[in-house]
Amino acid sequence: MTTTLPTTKMANAIRALAMDAVQKANSGHPGMPMGMAEIAVALWSGHYRHNPANPKWQNRDRFLLSNGHGSMLHYALLHLTGYELSMDDIKAFRQMHSKTPGHPEVDVTPGVETTTGPLGQGIANAVGMALSEQLLAAEFNKPGYDIVNHYTYAFVGDGCLMEGISHEVCALAGTLGLNKLIALYDDNGISIDGKVEGWFTDDTPARFEAYGWNVIRAVDGHDVAAVAAAIAAAKKASKPTLICCKTIIGKGSPNLQGGDKVHGAALGDKEIAAVREYIGWDAAPFEMPADVYAAWDAKKQGALLEADWNERFVAYGREFPQQAAELSRRMQGDLPAAFETALSAAIASCVEKKENIATRKASQNAIQALASSLPEFLGGSADLTGSNLTNWKECVAVRSGQPGNHINYGVREFGMSAIMNGITLHGGYIPFGATFLTFSDYSRNALRMAALMKLRSIFVFTHDSIGLGEDGPTHQSVEHVSSMRLIPNLDNWRPCDTVESAAAWGAAVRRKDGPSTLIFSRQNLPYQERSAEQIENIYRGGYVLNDVADAKAILIATGSEVELAVAAASALAAEGIAVRVVSMPSTDVYDRQDAAYKASVLTKGVPRVAIEAGVTSFWYKYVGLQGAVVGIDTFGESAPAGVLFKHFGFTVENVVAKVKAVIAG
Amino acid sequence: MTTTLPTTKMANAIRALAMDAVQKANSGHPGMPMGMAEIAVALWSGHYRHNPANPKWQNRDRFLLSNGHGSMLHYALLHLTGYELSMDDIKAFRQMHSKTPGHPEVDVTPGVETTTGPLGQGIANAVGMALSEQLLAAEFNKPGYDIVNHYTYAFVGDGCLMEGISHEVCALAGTLGLNKLIALYDDNGISIDGKVEGWFTDDTPARFEAYGWNVIRAVDGHDVAAVAAAIAAAKKASKPTLICCKTIIGKGSPNLQGGDKVHGAALGDKEIAAVREYIGWDAAPFEMPADVYAAWDAKKQGALLEADWNERFVAYGREFPQQAAELSRRMQGDLPAAFETALSAAIASCVEKKENIATRKASQNAIQALASSLPEFLGGSADLTGSNLTNWKECVAVRSGQPGNHINYGVREFGMSAIMNGITLHGGYIPFGATFLTFSDYSRNALRMAALMKLRSIFVFTHDSIGLGEDGPTHQSVEHVSSMRLIPNLDNWRPCDTVESAAAWGAAVRRKDGPSTLIFSRQNLPYQERSAEQIENIYRGGYVLNDVADAKAILIATGSEVELAVAAASALAAEGIAVRVVSMPSTDVYDRQDAAYKASVLTKGVPRVAIEAGVTSFWYKYVGLQGAVVGIDTFGESAPAGVLFKHFGFTVENVVAKVKAVIAG
Repeated sequence: MTTTLPTTKMANAIRALAMDAVQKANSGHPGMPMGMAEIAVALWSGHYRHNPANPKWQNRDRFLLSNGHGSMLHYALLHLTGYELSMDDIKAFRQMHSKTPGHPEVDVTPGVETTTGPLGQGIANAVGMALSEQLLAAEFNKPGYDIVNHYTYAFVGDGCLMEGISHEVCALAGTLGLNKLIALYDDNGISIDGKVEGWFTDDTPARFEAYGWNVIRAVDGHDVAAVAAAIAAAKKASKPTLICCKTIIGKGSPNLQGGDKVHGAALGDKEIAAVREYIGWDAAPFEMPADVYAAWDAKKQGALLEADWNERFVAYGREFPQQAAELSRRMQGDLPAAFETALSAAIASCVEKKENIATRKASQNAIQALASSLPEFLGGSADLTGSNLTNWKECVAVRSGQPGNHINYGVREFGMSAIMNGITLHGGYIPFGATFLTFSDYSRNALRMAALMKLRSIFVFTHDSIGLGEDGPTHQSVEHVSSMRLIPNLDNWRPCDTVESAAAWGAAVRRKDGPSTLIFSRQNLPYQERSAEQIENIYRGGYVLNDVADAKAILIATGSEVELAVAAASALAAEGIAVRVVSMPSTDVYDRQDAAYKASVLTKGVPRVAIEAGVTSFWYKYVGLQGAVVGIDTFGESAPAGVLFKHFGFTVENVVAKVKAVIAG
Repeated sequence: MTTTLPTTKMANAIRALAMDAVQKANSGHPGMPMGMAEIAVALWSGHYRHNPANPKWQNRDRFLLSNGHGSMLHYALLHLTGYELSMDDIKAFRQMHSKTPGHPEVDVTPGVETTTGPLGQGIANAVGMALSEQLLAAEFNKPGYDIVNHYTYAFVGDGCLMEGISHEVCALAGTLGLNKLIALYDDNGISIDGKVEGWFTDDTPARFEAYGWNVIRAVDGHDVAAVAAAIAAAKKASKPTLICCKTIIGKGSPNLQGGDKVHGAALGDKEIAAVREYIGWDAAPFEMPADVYAAWDAKKQGALLEADWNERFVAYGREFPQQAAELSRRMQGDLPAAFETALSAAIASCVEKKENIATRKASQNAIQALASSLPEFLGGSADLTGSNLTNWKECVAVRSGQPGNHINYGVREFGMSAIMNGITLHGGYIPFGATFLTFSDYSRNALRMAALMKLRSIFVFTHDSIGLGEDGPTHQSVEHVSSMRLIPNLDNWRPCDTVESAAAWGAAVRRKDGPSTLIFSRQNLPYQERSAEQIENIYRGGYVLNDVADAKAILIATGSEVELAVAAASALAAEGIAVRVVSMPSTDVYDRQDAAYKASVLTKGVPRVAIEAGVTSFWYKYVGLQGAVVGIDTFGESAPAGVLFKHFGFTVENVVAKVKAVIAG
């Protein structure tokens, strides 16, 4: 946009909105918006290509606030440039159900691309978006048609760069040569504890050069022209770029700027008055001069940008109708018609083959069966591809300058998961990525963010529980399945055989509005016979696998313990004790079923015993105080799997005894 | 040690033991031990100061295998140098209850300093140990008496260096100038997925120089003299040192060396025979030539080293008897007599003051009250000191070259927690470190490792659940308390007022054999009246706070919801419904009480309602299917705390209704 208004005044508009909104809420972070105001002007009034009238315009540049506590910066920009975010919305900053929550939340505020706050994950999401752009461009662009062609910009602070995840994802971004990723570093030398020199003395430019980034050093973050020039240079680089902007936190606050007090609390009426005086801002709180709005307004320019792209996309569609339709479908996240057919065939094949294989292998078979119908599949593993079995025959490894559909993420579990979230947010791909279940701990907050953002990221975890054997307690995930079940909106699947594994994949792919975890065994598990109705009921999360007339007890099991439940039920039947076996691959999905269905599976009043090679606490919500749980409430041991199962009481004898005890009451 | 045996043969002894043990177990990782064999010779036969007869000798050098999957390397070294680790133990590699589990486990194998396997945490533990050494030396050494004076050596692999935690802890180690930390990098260019060049192209030496490390580049990792010379240089550096050793993974395996196939599986009989041929190793599996034992034997040298130190320590003790006794006490982890007195006084002060304050403030008061009796207290925060309130009046910030007792860890939650574990493992300090509860996700696997290793690390988490208000769902930890309760051997405390907060601190400090989490509110909570017996019962994890005759129901609550339980019980009493209130600050500790006590708190047959501002699933183990839980099974919202509690049903009316419903049955 061209403007005659001094850029200082444009920046001060951000300062005023940020400090006034934080003051009104008496909560929030004025320091970052005030310190990054000129950087925001440089990016948003010059380089950033977006359309306020259509925040979902497919080819927009992406903008992420990795230092999400500075949310008012983004809200100010969205308001000023013309998004559907009114001054009343700004006034409702941090209030219940407002469009301006404490930290930026995707789908709550138009123009917010991701939910940030947990530091370091925003830049990880940005890496995922830049990677998506690169891969989609390779897949869909044609000579003369750069249909996919945008930049991804991220603001990052000292906190993001201290976080370990910044290492993981920026190293990978360098390796993959994501040259359309541009990060602007708010180098203000202050974090919450004060001047960072006591705990953060990295030579950050050198560090990023070590990752293979283009680094633009020592830019004056309050010089709009200098920052704009740096961005222009970055756009031409063949590597991802870090622009290091020296800034003063809270700039404009005469008594607090440059210190940690301005970071995370309202300035107070007195200091706000002092700011107005200091920066020469006459307008009352929440009043914005018309010339400021005019200077910031991006609606006209945005409409032109999108119209231009639309025109080119129409022409592209004329020449490449299939590709255009496919790109549109994928960006909308709709599944192809062939998917359901492929899923049915995959299940039918499992039923036909009746294989007794590890569910991680069954998972690979499902991936293989689904992949040709899902060109949006973008697999990967955190350096355990041959163990997690996330690859398939035709998959192509993604490398720098070489597009593909399987990512070797390296030993970077958290980075992988947050990058996957960025990929999902960008649109165009359904990412799945894997590690050992025990390392779900490393990536846990990214799973949480996927659940909070309602993203179709598919997290694959193999080598569950003690069944992995000799790697021992560090690798035996006794508490992880249950602990992931506690994350709201995360669907967790622990299948017991080939059919359930394929169905779990189907459910995860179908689920457009939330993430799933798929939890697989290292060891072989036996095939279970089912009717067509039972197969359909897998998608209900829990179902009756073996029924009996007049059941005296119900055995509930998941994954590798379903086999044991079936064997114990047989042993009990031989003693004349009728017991139902319920397979419960996903408690999360089961919990969402209607009451009648649930009652048909877990009949009221019938005593219950749950079996799972994990901690017991979670299962009392199904078995109650009168029931029993066969589980493990200690860490595992290092030994062959068979030895371990016996040692920890996963035996027919033990289960039979528990069932008899609960029947006796 | 001086030896006339060629170092090649010493290295080959490691190769033979590693490949044979992995073959016998048919499980394990031969590649790293075979590739790092010469590096191990250089360190263990020259520089490493230890005493096989006393693995707990206080002033020993510490040795950590951050790439813990190469456990057979460490076991081979321990066996060969004379630790209590027999050839039979080696033969029992990865078998049930052996002294040679799949990954190294502290307290299982003499000479193993920490449990590793989850990558990156070993080097983090090493940072903690080196920091402990530096701080203890500053505190206890006297002119002429370098009583605390040892190095900390860590082996790290590509995996460790890809992990984000390596960034966090190595950056901090550089900032703090931990010059007695020496890391030896096994730069073999291979990770599980193959040649790392596709996903790991960092200029690692440049990266570590950016952290302020001394980096010794391009050392031939198979040249014992070169590695030994590098270590000698590193010992003289004024910074932590990274020695980059170029190696061939699985070296000695003619057909597999240098590739990923040698990383994590037995070589097979045929290749093992080929290795024997290739390296000229004649001895049968698990037979070791006498000259090899003689060359490796470190018992005599170790006895001399310790005897020398003992002599100096006796002399130190004569001159500084108090300091000597204090150092011994602290290294043994015994509490000073003054601690219990201080704890009692802290509780008494709370009872006297009856303050209605945030429990994070109550926590700070407890720290203040206990700190003078606990010189081993080593506090810290991940850049939230003023929010977590982990500091106290007299605390001194740790800086490079400036000892102290409060660490600004920077925005490095996982690194902080794993460093704390290293501090605990070293001995001499009781570390506590804090962040917001929601970021316990970032550090989760370090909590798990503390629990697995039975370490007295104290993890402080403030700003729990929706009570933190406007920061919104990213920061509102609805599932975290319950999910930490699922980690075996982790004691979690969520106190409701000043008295419970002080008691929780007391319990965490007393607990010598395991970690605790202390979970505190941002907002003020009212003081609760208690008898002396009730105060004592806090240490039992759960207790009757308000009793009534002939209770019709029991309300169970924790932390900020105890206030609500008390108010609801009053309201019910006014309607003639007698309800007992149970405060349950630690379900983990309560679960360990005897059955009679538990029955006295949760009387059998009396209906129960649990109240906690978190996910409900966990609580059914106490309330059963006939009970009810007032909780939150969705993510939170961004709004003031009072608005949120009402919105999510934490009201007297709602609790009263739930109680009436469970009584009605």
